[in-house]
Amino acid sequence: MEKENTRFKNGLNALQNIDGTAGQNVMDSLTGDSKDIAKYIVEFAFGDIYTRNSLNLKQREMITITALLVQGDTAPQLNVHINGALNVSLSETEVIETFIQCIPYIGFPKVLNAVSVAHEVFKTRN
Amino acid sequence: MEKENTRFKNGLNALQNIDGTAGQNVMDSLTGDSKDIAKYIVEFAFGDIYTRNSLNLKQREMITITALLVQGDTAPQLNVHINGALNVSLSETEVIETFIQCIPYIGFPKVLNAVSVAHEVFKTRN
Amino acid sequence: MEKENTRFKNGLNALQNIDGTAGQNVMDSLTGDSKDIAKYIVEFAFGDIYTRNSLNLKQREMITITALLVQGDTAPQLNVHINGALNVSLSETEVIETFIQCIPYIGFPKVLNAVSVAHEVFKTRN
Amino acid sequence: MEKENTRFKNGLNALQNIDGTAGQNVMDSLTGDSKDIAKYIVEFAFGDIYTRNSLNLKQREMITITALLVQGDTAPQLNVHINGALNVSLSETEVIETFIQCIPYIGFPKVLNAVSVAHEVFKTRN
Amino acid sequence: MEKENTRFKNGLNALQNIDGTAGQNVMDSLTGDSKDIAKYIVEFAFGDIYTRNSLNLKQREMITITALLVQGDTAPQLNVHINGALNVSLSETEVIETFIQCIPYIGFPKVLNAVSVAHEVFKTRN
Amino acid sequence: MEKENTRFKNGLNALQNIDGTAGQNVMDSLTGDSKDIAKYIVEFAFGDIYTRNSLNLKQREMITITALLVQGDTAPQLNVHINGALNVSLSETEVIETFIQCIPYIGFPKVLNAVSVAHEVFKTRN
Repeated sequence: MEKENTRFKNGLNALQNIDGTAGQNVMDSLTGDSKDIAKYIVEFAFGDIYTRNSLNLKQREMITITALLVQGDTAPQLNVHINGALNVSLSETEVIETFIQCIPYIGFPKVLNAVSVAHEVFKTRN
Repeated sequence: MEKENTRFKNGLNALQNIDGTAGQNVMDSLTGDSKDIAKYIVEFAFGDIYTRNSLNLKQREMITITALLVQGDTAPQLNVHINGALNVSLSETEVIETFIQCIPYIGFPKVLNAVSVAHEVFKTRN
Repeated sequence: MEKENTRFKNGLNALQNIDGTAGQNVMDSLTGDSKDIAKYIVEFAFGDIYTRNSLNLKQREMITITALLVQGDTAPQLNVHINGALNVSLSETEVIETFIQCIPYIGFPKVLNAVSVAHEVFKTRN
Repeated sequence: MEKENTRFKNGLNALQNIDGTAGQNVMDSLTGDSKDIAKYIVEFAFGDIYTRNSLNLKQREMITITALLVQGDTAPQLNVHINGALNVSLSETEVIETFIQCIPYIGFPKVLNAVSVAHEVFKTRN
Repeated sequence: MEKENTRFKNGLNALQNIDGTAGQNVMDSLTGDSKDIAKYIVEFAFGDIYTRNSLNLKQREMITITALLVQGDTAPQLNVHINGALNVSLSETEVIETFIQCIPYIGFPKVLNAVSVAHEVFKTRN
Repeated sequence: MEKENTRFKNGLNALQNIDGTAGQNVMDSLTGDSKDIAKYIVEFAFGDIYTRNSLNLKQREMITITALLVQGDTAPQLNVHINGALNVSLSETEVIETFIQCIPYIGFPKVLNAVSVAHEVFKTRN
C-alpha cells in the first residue's frame, strides 16, 4: 500500500508541476465511472512515466506535444500540454519549432492545427 | 539559382551528417518518376527544416522518431531515423526512453513496434 | 427488386431500433448528391451488417463505439452510437468500461475524448 | 432477388475489369466465416460504388490509391489497386504523381511506402 | 536567389488561383515564429508541387480532398480545399462523388464528416 | 510494496490466462532499457485494466481486437490477442464477426488485414 500511495503522490506532484490547473481541470471532469481514468493518469502517466530518469521534463513535453500533434483530434490535450511545455520552460519558439520539425513527417494540416492551438495558449498566457 | 543550389547542397550535407548511408540508400532507391521525391527530401526536409535554428539535431531526431512511432506503418523510416538519432549522439537509452514517454499518449502496440525496430538497429551497430 | 427492398426495410428497422431519432437525423441531413450515402448506411451498414447472426446488438454497439473511439475525429458518430449502445441496453458503466479497456491500446487522449462525449450523452438522457 | 443478383453480377464484372486476377485472389482467400466479406466487396464496393456515374474509373482508382496511401498499413491493397489504376489506363507517371501530390498533406513516410509498392508493381508488369 | 523568388512567386500565384481568399486567410494567420510555415506552404506545397506537370489542378484537388478526408481532423483544411476544388472547376457533384468513392476504403464516419464540411461550403458559395 | 507486488502478481496471472505463451514471448523480448515496458504491460494493462469488473474477459478481448484492427499496423499484437480471444472462449466465428462489424466504420482494407492474421492464427491452432 505504501508504494501505491507513493505512485499516486508522486504522480499528482508531477502533474501539478507540469500541467498546473489545466491538468487539475481534466482530473476534476472525470467523475463517477470515469474517475478511475483520472487515477490511472496520475499513477501511471505521471507517477510511473514522467518521473523516470534519462530524459528531463522539457524533453518529455517536447515528445508529448509531438505525439499529440501527429495523432490528431487532440486539441484539448494539446492545450494542456502546450501549457505544460511552457511551464517546464520550453520557450514559445521551441514549441512552434517542434511543430515545424513535424512537417516533413506528417504534412501541413496537422501542423496547422497544432499551431492554431498554440496561438490560443500563447494569447491566454500573455 | 544560387540559392536553390544552396538548399540542395545544405540539405545533402545535413542528410549525410544525420542519416549517413541509410539516408543515401533511400535517395538511391528513388529513380525515374519518383526521383523528384528524393530532391524534395533533400531540399525541403533537410535543406529547409533540419538546418533551422532554435532546436539542435538531437532534439530534431527525438521529435522525428516520436512522429514516426505515433504515425505507425513507418518501420523503414524508423530504422533510418533511429540510426540518425544515434548518429547525432542520442544514446540508446534515450531512444528507448523517448518511446516509453509515448505510452500514455498512443498506447503499447505502436511503442512495441518501435522498440522492435530499435533492437534491430542496436544489434546491427554493435 | 424484392430483395433490395428487403435490405432497405430491414436496415431502416435496425437503424430505428438502435439509433432512434439520432440516426434519423443523420439520414435527414443527407440530401441532394449525398442522399445515396444515407441509402448505403441503411442498406449496407444496417441492412447487411447489423442484422447478421453470431453477435447480438449489445456486442455490435460495443465494437462500434470502440472502433469510433480508436479512429478519432468521430465525436458526432460517437454521440449517435453511445445513444445506440444505451438503447440496446448496454449500461452507462459498460460504455465507460469499454473506453477504459482501450487505454492500453490507444492511450489516454482518445479515451478522454470519448468519455467527454459519453458524459454529454448521459446528461441529455437523464 | 433479381436486383441482388444484379448487384453481385455488376460488381464482379467491375472487379474483374479493374483489378483482374489480383482482385480475384483476394476474393479466393476469403473462405469460411469470412466469405461474406468477399460478397460485400463485390456487391457494395464494386456493385454499388464503382459502377456509379459522375466519375470515371481512372478518377475512382486515383482516389482509391490516395485513400490507401494516406490511411497507411495497406501495402497489399495498394498492390491490388496500383494494378487496378494501370488496368484502367492511368500511366505509371500518373500513379507516382498522385503520390507526390500527397506529400504536403501527409508527409514523406507514407508516400515513400506507396512508391515502394508501386515500384514492385511496375517491375512485375514490365 | 532568382530561383528562390521564382518558387515563392509561382507558389503564391498557384495558391491564389486555387484557394483564393481562403488560402490567403490561412497565410495571414501565420505570424511570428510560425510565419515560416506560410512560406513553406507557398514555396513547397504550391510552388514545387501544385505547379508540376502530369496532373491538372482538378486532379490535384481531387487527390487533396481525398487525402484530407482520409486523414481526419482536417475540417478547416477541407473547407479551404473544397473551395479550391470548386474554384478549379470540379462540380459539387464531383466533390461529393469523390467522398462516396472513399466509403469502402475508410468507412462512413470520415465520409460523413467531409460531406458535412462540403454542405457548409456549398451553402456559403450559393 | 505489498500492493505493488499485488498489481504485478495479478497482472502476470491475467496475462498468462489470456495470452498464454504468446504474451510471455512478448515479455521475454523486452530486455535492457525496454524491460520496464514489460513491467508496465503486466502491472498496468493486465494488473490494473484486465482485472477490473463490469466487463468479462470475452468482452475485453473483443474490444481489444477491435482497437487493434482499427488502429492498424498491429499485426503482431493482433496475433497475440486473437489467440487471447480464443483462449478466453470467443469462437473463431465471433472473432471474424467482430471484424465484419468494423467494415462500416473503418472500411475493407484494415478488416482484410485483420482477417488475414486471424486465418494464420486459426491454422496454427488447428
